[in-house]
Order: sequence, then structure tokens, then C-alpha cells
Amino acid sequence: MTLAVRYTSARTLDTAPAVDVPPGPGEVELAPAYVGICGTDLHIFHGDMDARVAAPAVLGHEMSGRIVRVGAGVEGWAPGDAVTVMPLRWDDTCPACRAGHQHVCQHLDFIGIDSPGAMQQRWTVPAATLIRLPGSLPLDRAALVEPTAVAVHDVGRARVVSGEKVVVVGGGPVGILIALVARAAGAEVRVVELSAHRRLLAGELGLTAWDPAADDIGALVAAWTQDAGADVAFEVSGAAGGVDTAVDVLGVRGRLCLVAIHPRPREVNLHRFFWRELTLVGARLYDRSDFEYAVALVADGTIPADRLISKVVPLTQAPAAFEALEGGGDVMKILVDCTDTLEGATA
Amino acid sequence: MTLAVRYTSARTLDTAPAVDVPPGPGEVELAPAYVGICGTDLHIFHGDMDARVAAPAVLGHEMSGRIVRVGAGVEGWAPGDAVTVMPLRWDDTCPACRAGHQHVCQHLDFIGIDSPGAMQQRWTVPAATLIRLPGSLPLDRAALVEPTAVAVHDVGRARVVSGEKVVVVGGGPVGILIALVARAAGAEVRVVELSAHRRLLAGELGLTAWDPAADDIGALVAAWTQDAGADVAFEVSGAAGGVDTAVDVLGVRGRLCLVAIHPRPREVNLHRFFWRELTLVGARLYDRSDFEYAVALVADGTIPADRLISKVVPLTQAPAAFEALEGGGDVMKILVDCTDTLEGATA
Repeated sequence: MTLAVRYTSARTLDTAPAVDVPPGPGEVELAPAYVGICGTDLHIFHGDMDARVAAPAVLGHEMSGRIVRVGAGVEGWAPGDAVTVMPLRWDDTCPACRAGHQHVCQHLDFIGIDSPGAMQQRWTVPAATLIRLPGSLPLDRAALVEPTAVAVHDVGRARVVSGEKVVVVGGGPVGILIALVARAAGAEVRVVELSAHRRLLAGELGLTAWDPAADDIGALVAAWTQDAGADVAFEVSGAAGGVDTAVDVLGVRGRLCLVAIHPRPREVNLHRFFWRELTLVGARLYDRSDFEYAVALVADGTIPADRLISKVVPLTQAPAAFEALEGGGDVMKILVDCTDTLEGATA
Repeated sequence: MTLAVRYTSARTLDTAPAVDVPPGPGEVELAPAYVGICGTDLHIFHGDMDARVAAPAVLGHEMSGRIVRVGAGVEGWAPGDAVTVMPLRWDDTCPACRAGHQHVCQHLDFIGIDSPGAMQQRWTVPAATLIRLPGSLPLDRAALVEPTAVAVHDVGRARVVSGEKVVVVGGGPVGILIALVARAAGAEVRVVELSAHRRLLAGELGLTAWDPAADDIGALVAAWTQDAGADVAFEVSGAAGGVDTAVDVLGVRGRLCLVAIHPRPREVNLHRFFWRELTLVGARLYDRSDFEYAVALVADGTIPADRLISKVVPLTQAPAAFEALEGGGDVMKILVDCTDTLEGATA
């Protein structure tokens, strides 16, 4: 019997037998190995996305694993192949798709939110979503590829170039990944983060992190940039104060890349956008090229994925891990290990 | 004796003898002919900019006129030359200037706000601010060059290209000029404007205008764009509702160019920026190339400046014109004629 972690109602997860879905034409069945718990999963857990998520729902979209079976007509893939999944299905007919922006399809199926996710021991997905992993890449680290692809997309949307000064507001997993990807692009990076634990980790990764509760961020940016202001800011905190900070640190013609989800409208200093001719760029998800670059960055160690993994819990303890994460605390990324209780796995 | 229109305190203008400033080295003395009353002038009149404006202050920065005298070292200009003025002085040393963005210099002197403006019968300015006008261009129409340069800059910041669908929110003088410049760039344009008078004028200029109080703008945009949403929106209304409309009409990857001044922070639907990967671009003022293109557009009739001039009042009646404009009403652009009471003018 294989198990799945299911969201059943606000603040309630259970484990239940996974629903076996034989791979149809063009599909593959996977044995997920590691699945990261994402901020979006926590939003679902809180009950904030009940309008969109049909309970009981299997969560999870940051994963690594191996192919178990391939459906009819699937070419180029074989059982045992190590993969991750770009969890997007688009309709190819809406205006966004026709304009070449499939990742923001107007009828996007985000696998793991809108349809069953990876936090289970067997998972059937379209072969078109597969991204190949190099054999040398440990599968736990590979679970960081999906959030790294988010960071790659964000840095691309902000058009960060070598030598630019970049402020990342919010030093959680995505913020740290953005900082690392921007640094790899040649930028000088500062991270603004309230959590001492996260600032410490940032420091261990060679990133300078500032504390918005104790440091005068404006003065630090002025000194760092000789009064010019930063070239790029990333808003990854989701907080109202984070938006203000990201606007305030930018110099003339600075770009603010909006990464965090702000469910409600936020007050924004539009006068500053006018006065300094700032640009705000929304960034959502990723495309295949972002994913493939993310695989390379995780595989070559540019992204020290092992340093970002705070904890690995067995699938049966995922519900407790969600509860613990809800309380905040000194964690970065928690992975759910889907392999350890699996009997007869071919993976 | 020459006269000047002066702002003395909130809601109070007077006329007084102009202060004669002989042109120093690199300067020219002008005889302003026509000076447009701009929204910024009204803000000053309301007393909203007292922190920046040192009363008594001569207003006016949308002008045309002729050179009267040239100072030492001024080459290429002679008395009688028809000119307009790009009313910007920058310090050339701040980070914005060093980055090539002199028009948003961190210590910008905007002539007509920060230093004496054009609403007087003699006006001394640096020769470097002069823009040559073709002899064929009537000077009353030429007073529309400055706001047209604003529109050219805005359309450029939004990177409008031929075939795109553009919504202009706010159909006052700058909104209409943006619509006309965007149309000249090959865009299809819709104007959203509350005033029936301004919608009528837009219609006479061949622009389709919608009434946000009566029309379902969302449905109109959906029908017009086959559900794709607009490519570009310009927020020129300065109203909170205008920001919402400009965000709502945009399709995936749409660009919102922020033109209006919003002195206080506005609630902005940041989720839509994330979801549709929208871009917000602040736009302020212009540079010399914008001005030179604006001269060409006004001179060749692409901008039918005569249609936008609602009224021309003599300088002595400028205070009454400000009072009338404050009440709103059915006006577009009002010009102050600085020549009519002038004795002994060489212009």
C-alpha cells in the first residue's frame, strides 16, 4: 500500500492510502523521493485557499523522484530515471498561451494546488512536465530545484546584470535562493530579514544580511551605494513593511521585482515611482528554461541546497511538520521523505 | 513696464511688475508669448506645494516666445528667434545625472516651480534650455509643446509599439496628448474619462472615449481585446479609482505607465501584478529628444494643438482664469497671452 498526505480542512492533514492512477497515454507514474514544504502549502494548510483547493487534496510541488512506469506513447523516459516535475499544465489556447506566456495561462492547472500533488508515494503526471536530473545530484538536494527555478525566473524578470546592487527583502527559502542566483549573475546582494536564525544562515552562505528591526536600512543602503540607491529590489516578505522597504531602497530607474503574494491590496508609494521613474515587475512561477538552469545551479553547488535543508521528516510525520512550521521558528526548508515507509518500491 | 503673474499665498495670485534680470553669460532673455496653465500650476495655486514654492513666485513652464537679448557667450541664438524652453536645470554631479538620467536629477531645478517661471513679459533662462521652433508654427500652438513632450516621454517609457491596444485613464490635456502620441505610434487607443465635455472633444479627435460612471469598462476591454486585456494602460487621472481601472484592464505582461501624481500612497492590487506578471513604470518629465519630437508632432498637425486650446486670456486676467479652472468645468487647455498688454515689445 502506498500513502499520501492529504489536506482535508483548515489546519488538518491526514495520511491515507494513495489513489493509484495508472499512467495513461503521454503520462508517467513516479515514485516521489523528497518533497519540500512550500509557503503556498502552508497557505493551503491555513485554509486560506479553500476556494481553489478541492479537499481532500494531496499537496506538494517541490519534488524529486524516479520514474516507475511510463504510459503509451511516452518517448525518451524509462523506469528508474531521476526527475523533477515542472508542475504546470496550460491550455495552449488562451490569450496568454497564444502570446507565448504559457506559465501564466489564464486556465493554468498548477499541479499540487489545482490537481493532486507530489506528497504521496505514487504520482502520475504528464511526461511533458518532466525535467531530467543528473545522476550525480542527490535526490534530497534536487527537491530544491523547483524553488530555485522560481528564483531564476525572478532574477530574469528583474534583468539583474553583473555589478548591480540588489536588495532582497525577505530571507526565507525563496529570498535566499534569489540572493544566491543574483550573486551568481554578478550582483552585489544584501538581504533584509527579521529572523536572526535566517540572517545567520545567510551569513554562513556569504551573504550580508540586515535586520530591519534594528538596522537603519535607508542609511545602510545610502552608504553602500554612495547615495545612489539600489538598482534592484526583490519583495519576498509578503509584508506591508516589506513593500515600503523595497520601494525606499531603490535609486533612480530602480526595478522592484514583486515575488511575494499579497492577497489584499497594499498601500504603495506611487509618488516615488513617479519621482524616481521606478519600475515594478510582477514575477510568477517559471518556464522550462528557468527549470533547466535551476537544475544546473543546484547540481554544480552554486546553490548549496544541503545548507538550506533544515530537516527531513518521513511522510507519516508530514502533518506534524506542517504544525511545527506554522509556529515559525528556526527553520528554512523542510523536506518530506516519501521513500522510507515504502514497501516494494522500485525506486 | 513689464508684468508678471505671481503666486503669493494659497488661492491668491496677483500681477506685479516683472523683475528685470539682464541675461548673464550663457543666458538669454525671452519675451514669452503664450503660457499654458498646467495641473501643477493649479496644485501650487491651491497651496499644496508651499513647502517647495517660495512665494511670491512667478508660475508657468508651458510656453512659447521669442528671444529678446542674448548674454555673453551664447552662440547659435539671436533676438527674434522663436523658441520654447525645456524648463530643467540639473547638477550633472548626482548619481542620477551620472547615470545619464539628468531629467530626474536628485537636485533638479524645475523652472516655474523651483525658480521663476514664464508667466511674465520678460524671462531670463539658460540658453541650454532653449528648443527651436519652426517659423511656420503659430506661437499659441507652440505652447502645447511642453505637455506634448510629457506625452512623448510617457509613451516611450511604456514602450508602446504599433498594433498594441492602449487604455488611457484620464482624458485631460496630458491624457489626450498621450492618446494622440500613442495613436501616432500605431496603437489602438481608448480613453476613460468622466467628463462628458472631454469625451466629446476626444471623439472629435477621432478617439473612442468611455465613461467609467456609466460604461462597464471591464466588459468593454474584454470585448475589444477578445478577453486578452490591454497591452498598455496610462494612469493620468490621479484618482484612486483610476489606478484600479488601469490595473484591471491589463492583460498578461501588460504595462502600466504611471503619469499622474499621487501625493499619498495608494492601495494597489499587487496580487494582479504577480498573477499576470504586470509591469508598472513611473514616468516623469522628458529629455531633449522628447521635446524635439514633440515640436515635430505639434508642427505637422499630428497634435492638433488648436483643438486643445479652450481659451486664451490676457496676462492681467490670469488670476481669474486660475479661479475659473479651479471650479473644473468644460475646459481643456487655457493659455495666458503675455504679449497683449506689452508696450514696446520687440517680439
